[in-house]
Amino acid sequence: MKNTPRMKILLTNDDGIHAPGLYALSLEIKKIGDVSIVAPAVERSAVGHAITVVDPLRVTEVRRDGEIYGLAVSGTPADCVKIAIKTLLPKRPDLVISGINQGPNTGINVIYSGTVSAATEATMLGIPAFAISLDSFKSAEFAYAAEFAAKLALKMREAPLPAGVLLNVNVPAIPKEKIRGVQVTRQGIARFTEEFHERVDPRGRTYWWLGGELEDGKAEEGTDSAALHEGMVSVTPIHYDMTAYEDMDLVARMRLAK
Amino acid sequence: MKNTPRMKILLTNDDGIHAPGLYALSLEIKKIGDVSIVAPAVERSAVGHAITVVDPLRVTEVRRDGEIYGLAVSGTPADCVKIAIKTLLPKRPDLVISGINQGPNTGINVIYSGTVSAATEATMLGIPAFAISLDSFKSAEFAYAAEFAAKLALKMREAPLPAGVLLNVNVPAIPKEKIRGVQVTRQGIARFTEEFHERVDPRGRTYWWLGGELEDGKAEEGTDSAALHEGMVSVTPIHYDMTAYEDMDLVARMRLAK
Repeated sequence: MKNTPRMKILLTNDDGIHAPGLYALSLEIKKIGDVSIVAPAVERSAVGHAITVVDPLRVTEVRRDGEIYGLAVSGTPADCVKIAIKTLLPKRPDLVISGINQGPNTGINVIYSGTVSAATEATMLGIPAFAISLDSFKSAEFAYAAEFAAKLALKMREAPLPAGVLLNVNVPAIPKEKIRGVQVTRQGIARFTEEFHERVDPRGRTYWWLGGELEDGKAEEGTDSAALHEGMVSVTPIHYDMTAYEDMDLVARMRLAK
Repeated sequence: MKNTPRMKILLTNDDGIHAPGLYALSLEIKKIGDVSIVAPAVERSAVGHAITVVDPLRVTEVRRDGEIYGLAVSGTPADCVKIAIKTLLPKRPDLVISGINQGPNTGINVIYSGTVSAATEATMLGIPAFAISLDSFKSAEFAYAAEFAAKLALKMREAPLPAGVLLNVNVPAIPKEKIRGVQVTRQGIARFTEEFHERVDPRGRTYWWLGGELEDGKAEEGTDSAALHEGMVSVTPIHYDMTAYEDMDLVARMRLAK
């Protein structure tokens, strides 16, 4: 890798610019590239691939230990990537990394993920990208996941993915020495068992709050969730073409008429 | 179809409960089924597959011409479908229709679409669904699209789609007699050419506003956009499994190590 210029790497997330997962990621990625951080000003979990069109975006410089750490954007993760690349960064980044998310982004829930959507947005803008999440809503042990992210960043420069494809990485929240390897997986069908909690506010009006638990007990082999259960890092190639190609004939046979 | 009970059909959208496209849809669908409407209280364009987890949801009854028209939810289109099915509706619907959206949902932009995500959410909850959009940001001529939606609803009862698959329908904004037919399409690569407009607010602070135009001039044959250009109704089967199966081997060959 001598003589190769350092990669310009944009970091973002959906837990917000002050999240410890993003900070841990930045420490490792700085060792291998020039890092810019553009992330949501506040937590933006479960925003899916939202972009802000109805409201304006504001951008604020954030400092950490007396130095400029990054830019906080009053929008979603996808907004951050879009405005960073189109407007805020002086040069186009070579890679976008989104994370490290607190909690897994696996199964059906990937579609709700702001973390993944930031990486998808980068891919849509023609920039290689991956999302990385730690399989725990509690553990603050991001060090191994950050180390893996740095290795993956270098690998992706060596062996670029086809246009339109990104990686969704999930890392078990166990000590590095217990991690059993890396598995290329497919998106599983883990989902939250959700229920709405009905409550009454101080003024006597009803409101509902979505609660739920990740239900991935019966993860099928080969899926993202199953890999995590087995102590493996899960790497899923994903793309934003949602066409169900295998069902096009079936729909044609419906003989829909004008 | 004699002796078949009337379908229970839930309608939603992302333009908000007061949108004319939703009203036009409701008039046609009432002819073939029992309609419930649960839709966002305000416009929720470009929210992607967002769900509201950080804030509570509120629900308000909306009347039209002195009668109950539907329920307005203080959330996203996906929230509406989730809370309707889990909490608000007395019975599980047989079908969910999202639309009629003002403006196309084609190409790359499908991933940003609140309209499509509402239908996707229904599919994730095991209920057949489709999204329907009118290819114009101005025309209020929703009548033909509504008529097509009603026909499609009946067809989908006759010939159910596989689990996990939904339809994304786009209708040209031309008179019915000029429509040339129905084409089963794939998601194209039409996208918005976007730019951020930098402005200064009355207090002297900078803000950015996302603007853009749909750029689908070079639509490839077989895609959603191309069908619309040719005066055809576009019907794209889509699914929420984002795995890029054809690239799994390639990622395996990257030999990612722990």
